[in-house]
Amino acid sequence: MNDIVKPSTIAGVMELLPEDQLAFNYIKSVIEETFKKYQFLPIDTPLIEKDEILFAKGGGETEKQIFKIESESKNMSLRFDLTVPLARYVAEHFSFLNFPFKRYHIAKVYRGERNQKGRYKEFYQCDIDIIGNNKLSIYNDALLPRVIYEIFSKLDFKGLSFHINNRKLLNGYFKSLGIEDSTETLRIIDKMAKIGKDKTIDLLKKEVSSDKAIEIVDFLDNNLSNTEVLEKLEKEKKNELFLQGLEELKTVYAYMKEFGIPDENIKLDLSITRGLDYYTSTVYETFLNGYESIGSVCSGGRYEDLASKFSKQKLPGVGLSIGLTRLFYQFQELGLVDKYKKDFTQVLVVPMDDSYNFYAIDLVNKLREEAIRVDLYLEGGKSGKKLAYADKIGVKNVIIIGEEEYKNKVLTLKNMETGDQSTLGLDELIEKIKQS
Amino acid sequence: MNDIVKPSTIAGVMELLPEDQLAFNYIKSVIEETFKKYQFLPIDTPLIEKDEILFAKGGGETEKQIFKIESESKNMSLRFDLTVPLARYVAEHFSFLNFPFKRYHIAKVYRGERNQKGRYKEFYQCDIDIIGNNKLSIYNDALLPRVIYEIFSKLDFKGLSFHINNRKLLNGYFKSLGIEDSTETLRIIDKMAKIGKDKTIDLLKKEVSSDKAIEIVDFLDNNLSNTEVLEKLEKEKKNELFLQGLEELKTVYAYMKEFGIPDENIKLDLSITRGLDYYTSTVYETFLNGYESIGSVCSGGRYEDLASKFSKQKLPGVGLSIGLTRLFYQFQELGLVDKYKKDFTQVLVVPMDDSYNFYAIDLVNKLREEAIRVDLYLEGGKSGKKLAYADKIGVKNVIIIGEEEYKNKVLTLKNMETGDQSTLGLDELIEKIKQS
Repeated sequence: MNDIVKPSTIAGVMELLPEDQLAFNYIKSVIEETFKKYQFLPIDTPLIEKDEILFAKGGGETEKQIFKIESESKNMSLRFDLTVPLARYVAEHFSFLNFPFKRYHIAKVYRGERNQKGRYKEFYQCDIDIIGNNKLSIYNDALLPRVIYEIFSKLDFKGLSFHINNRKLLNGYFKSLGIEDSTETLRIIDKMAKIGKDKTIDLLKKEVSSDKAIEIVDFLDNNLSNTEVLEKLEKEKKNELFLQGLEELKTVYAYMKEFGIPDENIKLDLSITRGLDYYTSTVYETFLNGYESIGSVCSGGRYEDLASKFSKQKLPGVGLSIGLTRLFYQFQELGLVDKYKKDFTQVLVVPMDDSYNFYAIDLVNKLREEAIRVDLYLEGGKSGKKLAYADKIGVKNVIIIGEEEYKNKVLTLKNMETGDQSTLGLDELIEKIKQS
Repeated sequence: MNDIVKPSTIAGVMELLPEDQLAFNYIKSVIEETFKKYQFLPIDTPLIEKDEILFAKGGGETEKQIFKIESESKNMSLRFDLTVPLARYVAEHFSFLNFPFKRYHIAKVYRGERNQKGRYKEFYQCDIDIIGNNKLSIYNDALLPRVIYEIFSKLDFKGLSFHINNRKLLNGYFKSLGIEDSTETLRIIDKMAKIGKDKTIDLLKKEVSSDKAIEIVDFLDNNLSNTEVLEKLEKEKKNELFLQGLEELKTVYAYMKEFGIPDENIKLDLSITRGLDYYTSTVYETFLNGYESIGSVCSGGRYEDLASKFSKQKLPGVGLSIGLTRLFYQFQELGLVDKYKKDFTQVLVVPMDDSYNFYAIDLVNKLREEAIRVDLYLEGGKSGKKLAYADKIGVKNVIIIGEEEYKNKVLTLKNMETGDQSTLGLDELIEKIKQS
């Protein structure tokens, strides 16, 4: 009986105290409600998937980070993202879905990251994707940023920048320079924001001539206005792929504005590439103005075919993803969490004696009918202990029911911040609490 | 490229199509909103816990069902309930929590159940618990059923019965019959609803005399009214434990009614025992009238000490739990899911040509400001295909934007159920959609 096991979580996971959890859940609910408002449908897939599904595209680096389930007969693991499960879901239920299929998925994924600050083994992804059956109009690429813009606006980050680019445009451009396989070039460019222009030129020189390396870095320059970027691109007389990419980029840009994103929140940024093979057209990254150092808070893009490993159907799509756990960690580091802490309890009712309990409960029942977030302290003990509880939970309004209140059927409201007490009728009380 | 992996989930998990998922999420949100209304705080613990935590009380049957994570150095597994994580959480964060600590937790848990209909390897538990520091008033035992009553009322099950009992009363009664260790007796009684009275008497005879076996089964008779049960119990002149249990049962019963549960929804039922050692006082089971065959939809009770393995603090508590995945399965089997399917999309806007897209988007932006759940079809194609999409998603209202609407700046609303079309101004349109 006396063998106490030290209570602790596994390493590298985020576990919050209730107050922070409320702030986290508030952010999560803003994300979810906005996804729903834009008519994305929810899906909820099992956390455990067959390895043959998870690694259909080959394991690579991901497989080393996977949490495998011990099992004699079956090979299965915890999912490491929400994209593979989406691909499996759409392929499996293809004939029961309507296309374009707009789905959201907010759930935990698992990666065996090395223990390091801000890197979690378990973290929430908040994904939206729109999947077409065989084709999908380019306008969808403009709708997704609108959803994200609204989410961050509601979270009080009106100053955010969508950096958008187009992979066809980039690939067309590289082709015009004689670079047929742009994989390595893209890999280098992707790091430019981190390593700087000079280092990028050095690395590019291993792939192309010195002149071309300088030309490329010059082309990617992201210190231009949107108008300047478009003017520059219009002047380039490139190949068909380039022109197709340019047309798409212009369309996405125009429709983003039409969907209500202010021009100042959009940045045509030719240096955004989003990693390697997966994305084939539009790519996005999102930065919070003044907090650029935390990196992109929402990224994604357009892909040719979601589920080529699971289905012969061609399923083009476009998606964006918020890494919520990491974002919340960053908000914590920046001291931004407090603004998402709303009062959980509006008023606490405290009967000073058990014999007033029924009177207190009648009152609480009435307040709950008025949608007031009310709690009731029925633990007994001395009055000091009762008010200490009110202090600890940080509630502003306390209704004390003592002998006088009980006998005369009146209500005393105590403001815990000012110490003021006022005696009120029920209707006045309800009004006062709702306003406070 | 042509090697297609058959897309499928692991066996024994529930994965829903979006329409059913919406119904599932509706039920889940009713549960969560009600938990919050009654001021339960959210927690969200990692799905993976250390084995030393999960099996601190010894593994037993549970350990055989566990999903272990493959790992060379650390022993960890997926949680099999939300109670062990709660115990670990409260012990770990003890000094940062306020007591009584009212928490809710809605999340998935994992058990390697044999594949069988209605049994899932991954399932949602929806738990509420109230934890005291050293002591916890009996009134909390009456609050929990109120929360559950409200949930099922909102889900349109006003006819439900809380069966409540008290383990002290039962143990006191058994003690008075000379049964000091009631474990086996309780185990037998727990099965009475399934095996019937005669079989129960047969089994009890192995533990006690024939007379006592009959006396016990007679005592447990649950065909009495609440008044009759109390009258019967009052007449029994038993030991202190019995009287203490009786007092608690009477208090919980009186407070349940005071919290607003109608008497007809409460059943004092001496035959409810809730398994074995864990519960020490109040125990509950909940049945939906007319659907008793699906068993208890929400069970729980009072326990002496939540976290004896993780903390020297004594933490008495009381909890109730809804097994949502299983409940949803049962609703599916009974054909009850449809009533939780609300219209997801209220209106679909369909421009007949790409050149009307901006006009359509302007309209959609306005409707979204009015909190109308509106979707937009921008996929092009022939008009038949567009209306077929509206049919497939089952939306009632469609706004068609053709040449005439665009030129004359009017709006045509088509009712897909009746086929009626009407030309309206924006305000009329908004009013009509909100009402439909």
